[in-house]
Amino acid sequence: MASGRMEFHARTIMQHANFAFVLPNDIEKPEVKDLRHYDRPTKSLILLHGLTGTDTDWLFGGVAQEMAIQYNLAVFMPTAGNFFYLDRGYEGGNYGAYVGRELIEYIREVFGYCQRREDTIIGGLSMGGYGALHTALAYPETFSGCIALSSALRIRDIATGVPSANVIMSEKMERDIFGDPAELLDSDRNPEVQLRTLRSAGKALPRMYLAIGTEDSLLTCNRRFRDFLAQEKADFRYEEGPGAHNWTFWNEYLNRGLSWMLS
Amino acid sequence: MASGRMEFHARTIMQHANFAFVLPNDIEKPEVKDLRHYDRPTKSLILLHGLTGTDTDWLFGGVAQEMAIQYNLAVFMPTAGNFFYLDRGYEGGNYGAYVGRELIEYIREVFGYCQRREDTIIGGLSMGGYGALHTALAYPETFSGCIALSSALRIRDIATGVPSANVIMSEKMERDIFGDPAELLDSDRNPEVQLRTLRSAGKALPRMYLAIGTEDSLLTCNRRFRDFLAQEKADFRYEEGPGAHNWTFWNEYLNRGLSWMLS
Amino acid sequence: MASGRMEFHARTIMQHANFAFVLPNDIEKPEVKDLRHYDRPTKSLILLHGLTGTDTDWLFGGVAQEMAIQYNLAVFMPTAGNFFYLDRGYEGGNYGAYVGRELIEYIREVFGYCQRREDTIIGGLSMGGYGALHTALAYPETFSGCIALSSALRIRDIATGVPSANVIMSEKMERDIFGDPAELLDSDRNPEVQLRTLRSAGKALPRMYLAIGTEDSLLTCNRRFRDFLAQEKADFRYEEGPGAHNWTFWNEYLNRGLSWMLS
Amino acid sequence: MASGRMEFHARTIMQHANFAFVLPNDIEKPEVKDLRHYDRPTKSLILLHGLTGTDTDWLFGGVAQEMAIQYNLAVFMPTAGNFFYLDRGYEGGNYGAYVGRELIEYIREVFGYCQRREDTIIGGLSMGGYGALHTALAYPETFSGCIALSSALRIRDIATGVPSANVIMSEKMERDIFGDPAELLDSDRNPEVQLRTLRSAGKALPRMYLAIGTEDSLLTCNRRFRDFLAQEKADFRYEEGPGAHNWTFWNEYLNRGLSWMLS
Repeated sequence: MASGRMEFHARTIMQHANFAFVLPNDIEKPEVKDLRHYDRPTKSLILLHGLTGTDTDWLFGGVAQEMAIQYNLAVFMPTAGNFFYLDRGYEGGNYGAYVGRELIEYIREVFGYCQRREDTIIGGLSMGGYGALHTALAYPETFSGCIALSSALRIRDIATGVPSANVIMSEKMERDIFGDPAELLDSDRNPEVQLRTLRSAGKALPRMYLAIGTEDSLLTCNRRFRDFLAQEKADFRYEEGPGAHNWTFWNEYLNRGLSWMLS
Repeated sequence: MASGRMEFHARTIMQHANFAFVLPNDIEKPEVKDLRHYDRPTKSLILLHGLTGTDTDWLFGGVAQEMAIQYNLAVFMPTAGNFFYLDRGYEGGNYGAYVGRELIEYIREVFGYCQRREDTIIGGLSMGGYGALHTALAYPETFSGCIALSSALRIRDIATGVPSANVIMSEKMERDIFGDPAELLDSDRNPEVQLRTLRSAGKALPRMYLAIGTEDSLLTCNRRFRDFLAQEKADFRYEEGPGAHNWTFWNEYLNRGLSWMLS
Repeated sequence: MASGRMEFHARTIMQHANFAFVLPNDIEKPEVKDLRHYDRPTKSLILLHGLTGTDTDWLFGGVAQEMAIQYNLAVFMPTAGNFFYLDRGYEGGNYGAYVGRELIEYIREVFGYCQRREDTIIGGLSMGGYGALHTALAYPETFSGCIALSSALRIRDIATGVPSANVIMSEKMERDIFGDPAELLDSDRNPEVQLRTLRSAGKALPRMYLAIGTEDSLLTCNRRFRDFLAQEKADFRYEEGPGAHNWTFWNEYLNRGLSWMLS
Repeated sequence: MASGRMEFHARTIMQHANFAFVLPNDIEKPEVKDLRHYDRPTKSLILLHGLTGTDTDWLFGGVAQEMAIQYNLAVFMPTAGNFFYLDRGYEGGNYGAYVGRELIEYIREVFGYCQRREDTIIGGLSMGGYGALHTALAYPETFSGCIALSSALRIRDIATGVPSANVIMSEKMERDIFGDPAELLDSDRNPEVQLRTLRSAGKALPRMYLAIGTEDSLLTCNRRFRDFLAQEKADFRYEEGPGAHNWTFWNEYLNRGLSWMLS
């Protein structure tokens, strides 16, 4: 299967931003289980890493390549630091605009993928699960779907001072990323606010798939977001299952999420 | 987990030869299921690709990273073309000497791994399964073990004109790789000859693990080699199981092979 | 500047063939000396490595990136072993068809470059200088120009038993690459034969730029080819200058060749 | 020449931090101009990128490979964002500790280089020129020398509100990187403070090489630092020459700096 890593000058984050990709354009058909996915044009999936992660995570630990083959997906995996795919408020630090707009535009220009909303999905794990939700809700005209796995949906916890179970995440680091906790709940960093804003404006929401393991410390905040989505009557699917915060869980549920979204 | 790709000037194949690697030197202990593997020094595993393959195969399709973490293994994955890891008979075309000697020496010099025979294993799939066996038997002082998955043990078939089930492999290509079929059976390209030569010289054999899926067209020739090993009373383990010539099989049986060899 | 490395399944050489690329699609205009090159569409340059080389040679030792910026060029640098970019005569070993056809078709499909003959050039150094000439003459409908630096134009020498000055190249290796010396002069591995065949068929030739250093052991055979081109009244430019077989020479004359060809 | 890119889990910046490297351990002697550099052990050079840069900058635009060959240097080129190689004050954001300590320790462990102070140098361009100076002065027991090219020595300008000539660098971005301007002059982000602190403690300073082009907007602040070093009677060399803020300048003066430092 075609694969690579490349980088380009991204203005939003003022970096030669790096991403990995797999492209199902050289697939031998016998490798594919369900050929119906090859009766349609290739769809695109942006896959986001978790905290401390990098562009190869979904390739080395995860099943990005297998999913690309089975579902006829061009998969793009950016490296974007530990900023939760959020904008820092100045040109050069806007990681949300990078993933949601500039990267997409660049992929369109160079590869021709991500052209149509119905063909463009974003997914991620942990920090990247939050990032996938937040980015899909920030750019709903770009993404028709979102797959959020073991998502770090901690906005409410951060705002109310509940410390992270992640030993990496100090209070100082959290403040550097999310800003003043007192302003967080009502900001557009809160997916609930984002969703309600889209609703008010009469805009289409992305379809949302969420999954969380029952041994994951993020279980409670994911259930809370599930309740919010149910209350909002959003088009979503939420799954819980035995599992922890690891590749065994993410690989199984990425597959389940894609199967639900693409069938 | 630490990972990378690099290349160096390899005299045996006169190329800036490329290999990928994963190194378990930055592992956070909680990721590891069985910590006993971290009570000993890191061992080394050379993993060989199949026909048409490349250094990233075991990373993108296979579980190289997971195995490295679980078993405390430094894994090195060379790219070495379609020459079955054999010597072409001139400096600049010796793919056997490259993998079995020059690459190992380079890894020793740069990384310090592969120092001791008991810490050095070679494995591979399909063409790389044959390559792992052939290389381990050609350099038995370097490798203490060998994991040969779905191995293309076709020497006898080629010698007797049985065509390959692999559509890629034309007779002309086969001749370019293996030379004159009439001379093949008695040559050191035949693992049976290699093993008997080592026995005659009183040299230690590598421990061998072989696995093959029951839906694999290579089943017959693997059973034949099993019978040979049994007859020779070699130290080996042979496993058959439901499965075909694909990553599902290779990933499961690489794990089984390592578990047997390292416990 | 945008850059990357990728690989895809190439049928001609039955490999996940690797290539590097630089793309001038994120250039900040102030970096560019002569903006007129940006008033036209981006052109494409395939750059071939020499013996023992790899896809990064023109990036790490050479000025591929600088040329890409100055001349608005998308540059693609394949890795293709030591086979002089020639076909070995079976699907799976055809390095000429790989570079001249399959790679070009793949670049067209994925990136949209190399679409028009007048926008597509091939260049190379040493073995790659021969390869650039041979490939341009084998696929004249694809390449409008060719830049052959310090080219290993040794067909006549090989045919007449003149040994290579390159210590790497043994007679056995040479035979493995070029086949029977007795059949070489009249074969299409001889650029003179290629050119005459195109002439006979009334086909357009690529424009050719050749350069060789006066301290280079390949000087004589390059002069011989210059005389042949002059005699054939081909559209070419030949330059000699102080210099040896190294990057100082290649970088200067790649620039001179591009300047001549693109102005 | 041996080269590669790798990444490892760096605690200081909580990332799978990426770096490129070239290693002169496979050099053919005829490539080398001055063989005396090969009569001593290989030295190590850390090379830092400028704003918006990445680990491949010194390879694709710069002469990292050529310097490695000529001076028998193992060169390591980290990617470290736009944070001027400074600590953000929490584990997970300490880019100074990453380059000055954790990366060095990792290189020692994996490759065995950077063992001795007298064999370890750090260099960089623009932001990386400042970074090289700041890091060498922060870890003087690690680095014996420092090569600072076209260095962004803007501490005094930032503190006094002189805007950057670099269009990328907004005031908001500058504050995100350097913190409160009012506290900057007296902080250890100011190389003058660093140097005086080392002097007071009686510690050895690194040897410093500085170069700046006369057409560079950073000329004034480099002259100011030169005057400071002269006043402090530090062991340094300062060079000015025709040139701007580009690779032509950096490549020439990296060579001059290494020649001065290593002869």
